[in-house]
Amino acid sequence: MAASYALGHGKQRSGRTYAGWQPVRLGGMTRTIQYRKRAADRPMETQPHSQPLTGAEVAIQTAAAAGIDVCFANPGTTELYLVQALDRCPGIKPILAVFEGVCTGAADGYARVTGRPALALLHLGPGLANGQANLHNARKAHSPVVSIVGEHATWHIAANAPLTADIETLARPMSQFVLTAKSPDTVGQDMAEVIARAGQLPTGPTTLILPGDIQWAHVTTPPVQPQIAAPAPPDADETERAARALRAGQTALVLSGSALRTAGLQAADRIERATGCRVLTPTFPPIQDRGIGLISPDKIPYAPEPATQLLEPYKNVILAGAHEPVAFFGYPNTRSSLCAEDGQLIQLCSADIDPATALAALADALDAPAVRTAPALPRPEVPSGPLTPANMCRALAAAQPEGAIVMDEGATAGFAYHGMAGGAPPFTYMALTGGSIGQGLPCAVGAAVAAPDRPTICLEGDGSSLYTIQSLWTMAREQQNLTSIICKNRAYSILRWELERAKMTPGEASLALTALDSPEFDFVKLAEGFGVEGRAVHTTEELNEALQSAFKNPGPLLIEANLE
Amino acid sequence: MAASYALGHGKQRSGRTYAGWQPVRLGGMTRTIQYRKRAADRPMETQPHSQPLTGAEVAIQTAAAAGIDVCFANPGTTELYLVQALDRCPGIKPILAVFEGVCTGAADGYARVTGRPALALLHLGPGLANGQANLHNARKAHSPVVSIVGEHATWHIAANAPLTADIETLARPMSQFVLTAKSPDTVGQDMAEVIARAGQLPTGPTTLILPGDIQWAHVTTPPVQPQIAAPAPPDADETERAARALRAGQTALVLSGSALRTAGLQAADRIERATGCRVLTPTFPPIQDRGIGLISPDKIPYAPEPATQLLEPYKNVILAGAHEPVAFFGYPNTRSSLCAEDGQLIQLCSADIDPATALAALADALDAPAVRTAPALPRPEVPSGPLTPANMCRALAAAQPEGAIVMDEGATAGFAYHGMAGGAPPFTYMALTGGSIGQGLPCAVGAAVAAPDRPTICLEGDGSSLYTIQSLWTMAREQQNLTSIICKNRAYSILRWELERAKMTPGEASLALTALDSPEFDFVKLAEGFGVEGRAVHTTEELNEALQSAFKNPGPLLIEANLE
Repeated sequence: MAASYALGHGKQRSGRTYAGWQPVRLGGMTRTIQYRKRAADRPMETQPHSQPLTGAEVAIQTAAAAGIDVCFANPGTTELYLVQALDRCPGIKPILAVFEGVCTGAADGYARVTGRPALALLHLGPGLANGQANLHNARKAHSPVVSIVGEHATWHIAANAPLTADIETLARPMSQFVLTAKSPDTVGQDMAEVIARAGQLPTGPTTLILPGDIQWAHVTTPPVQPQIAAPAPPDADETERAARALRAGQTALVLSGSALRTAGLQAADRIERATGCRVLTPTFPPIQDRGIGLISPDKIPYAPEPATQLLEPYKNVILAGAHEPVAFFGYPNTRSSLCAEDGQLIQLCSADIDPATALAALADALDAPAVRTAPALPRPEVPSGPLTPANMCRALAAAQPEGAIVMDEGATAGFAYHGMAGGAPPFTYMALTGGSIGQGLPCAVGAAVAAPDRPTICLEGDGSSLYTIQSLWTMAREQQNLTSIICKNRAYSILRWELERAKMTPGEASLALTALDSPEFDFVKLAEGFGVEGRAVHTTEELNEALQSAFKNPGPLLIEANLE
Repeated sequence: MAASYALGHGKQRSGRTYAGWQPVRLGGMTRTIQYRKRAADRPMETQPHSQPLTGAEVAIQTAAAAGIDVCFANPGTTELYLVQALDRCPGIKPILAVFEGVCTGAADGYARVTGRPALALLHLGPGLANGQANLHNARKAHSPVVSIVGEHATWHIAANAPLTADIETLARPMSQFVLTAKSPDTVGQDMAEVIARAGQLPTGPTTLILPGDIQWAHVTTPPVQPQIAAPAPPDADETERAARALRAGQTALVLSGSALRTAGLQAADRIERATGCRVLTPTFPPIQDRGIGLISPDKIPYAPEPATQLLEPYKNVILAGAHEPVAFFGYPNTRSSLCAEDGQLIQLCSADIDPATALAALADALDAPAVRTAPALPRPEVPSGPLTPANMCRALAAAQPEGAIVMDEGATAGFAYHGMAGGAPPFTYMALTGGSIGQGLPCAVGAAVAAPDRPTICLEGDGSSLYTIQSLWTMAREQQNLTSIICKNRAYSILRWELERAKMTPGEASLALTALDSPEFDFVKLAEGFGVEGRAVHTTEELNEALQSAFKNPGPLLIEANLE
């Protein structure tokens, strides 16, 4: 179902809060949509101007009007008017990254933690290209990441200058909506539209391409107050269909999106207690509230065999904000779906309905018991001994402070962590959503920008870290309370696991292309090269000590965990 | 004009050299094409097999049959059958990079130096995305880079698993030809086609998308001997049109492609002596033979004002393998073309004709004097004193050994180098072609793989280096004779120059987004973190000494040049 959205198309003057909340319907919409004003909506921050605004200023002030207060940027010449617009818009803080994948990954982390649209500023086609892998992850996470990409002046595109590329085509695979500004007079509307399309359900990355001559033109139309449509209310028929399945038994409930935040988990707990259903999460949830007081549903395993085995008993699989559980890869003689062959998939709610709200409605329809504090789960003791992956995961689960944000891109080394952390003090968990490794460090950077007072932790594979290792510099520049634990096992272990799984005998090429040991990476030196303190640990005791030190002292720290 | 190409569609058996050189015409071709066997074409390297080949093996052996002997790879699970095929194809050496932009940039450098198609192996859409910025540069360099991108099994794509993306759409902006394999039985033909489309004029990057089930299927059709069509012969009418312009005077001759290799420069020298024309090169030539014995044409300047001034006197501008000289960016109140408004652009030859050959024919048509050894140009003395950008450039031009390959991504700090190096011993020069910074280090890696016995030098901006800093690890792993000089000026200086040029007053955001000084990067530690020796120099004397040491000792070295 297409999303509804509402844009401020009405005329307005700079400095006034826009009040014309006209709902605009997209093709195919028949549902009645109710709009509410979101906390993110606030009066536009504008300054008195002695001359008309530029197109770039209208775009940036429209973003500020939507509550966007940070811009993760790696600009070039074609974005200089946007940079100048940031100079004149103190409400948006520019944060520099030295690689675009850090910008888009950080915007994703920021959006996941705040639940609001986040902004990335990128340089033409190649800058967008470098940001695309983490936009792919953002798309799979349904993160409202708004990218502004500078483009040559419209009249210069045909000259096919060195930096010319087909930006729109490039953007489409990773953005759910792409728009090229066509006129300086509509740039405010354009910006408002990409923000609305990102920020309202179904949320996801969108891209605005802004040619130079549209950026530098002086325009007469003021910035626009973007209107992000509120979610549609739960649908009684959908709720009843799910309730029937739950009453029939043999039902699993898979949560994602807002269903994995506190209210969603509490509603799922009510439903579980009322019906005995099995509550599960995807292998890689975008963001999940966890720890003491909350239920800790099992993850669907990564490997298709145990995943299929887990889901086999369930005749009905209800999806609350989650996609159908499918295998990560298609292997010979397997199938895509992980659910029982005779099972039935039930979508709890349409894409424009908030899954947590739908779960609460479902719990009510089931006359489920009230919200409770979930029983405490065991927390690992502080471990000791050889630094195995399991001990590393235990050490983190035992040490993480209350309020932590844990970004998990630990891959094979970190697989055990999720199951161990349910008994930790309340925290927020995030995972790699699109399988494009190199999301962990940038996403943690964005999370730490969104919540500077919360300790942020990134559990990061050594191979994965290297795609966006430049993130470390932004951690240092912003003096983030961010602890990166590099799980150093000196290999793309997941590939060696996949070779074994496929019963392939690795030859010279297979060994060479999965090894990260010749030479070894020195992550302490890499950290220091980027301005971050680094510490190598070789025993579990050393790791425990490093974690204590990390959570006590401000600023970023990288821990190179040399795994056995 | 569309390229001609010829593929081995005829039936053949594994192990036999393909002999049926059937020319295949593309739509619109009317010209008679002559084919010749290239040095790169050689009998297929195949091994006796006890069972039928897989689709992946047919693809890899088809690449080997085209003379491809290196694969720059960052594979994932969907490429494991291709990796296994490399295990069984000793003729292709796999070279691992830990970021895909290094793979594609290295393939570009390899292709520029060898003049032959180079292979990159990438992981699904996100892996391709990470390689796209350097494929953009390769496209602007007309480098025959062949990317193989693994894809989910065809039946798994609809499941929309985490790594699923629209790879074809993503690939198109940066590849001149994109093909998704549709059947295991035609995978050899598909591979031969992407190689041919990359390797014959007009050369450029191409992409083959290879689904898992096509990789792992056992196929009955053998590998194919790719046929790369030889260039078309010069066209007498085109030659005569250019000769008329040259005879009329006030003519500039802009060289690129093969026109910048030794034979092309010698022919241009003959033409210059016959007609008094001005010979020029683009601001960023893909690859150029230089040094003692060769003419050293001036570059068209980067800034539009001096470039326009340079070209103003020329009524005719003949393009020999070059594109029309256009401004790098479109600025307010400027135009795209750099040529005189009443000037005439003349294409020396169509895109399927070799520019160096066309230049030789043109020289003959003009009864130009014979090839000579060009008069020696001055070479800078070994400089001393403060480490200014000019002294850094002088130091390199004074020290570089015979046979060097110099990759120039020095940006503002390195702008003076090109003009100083004409009197150095014979060497090969390469530049950033598509404006997507982050090409220098990877391109140098590929050049050093192509010519391991030649000293390779990368003059690299500090900001630019950080996009693909992971290149250092591959330098260490391959123990390359590669010296990277990082021009450390602690800023995106080109952007500050552009701000000044546009008379913009930088505010807080403009300053923050162009500064690389808080914290400073420690490139020596970064190098060591990746396994490369690093050395910081602060004076010209220290730089001179570091360069001497670099050219004397084998293996990679990074020199952090702290510029005044």
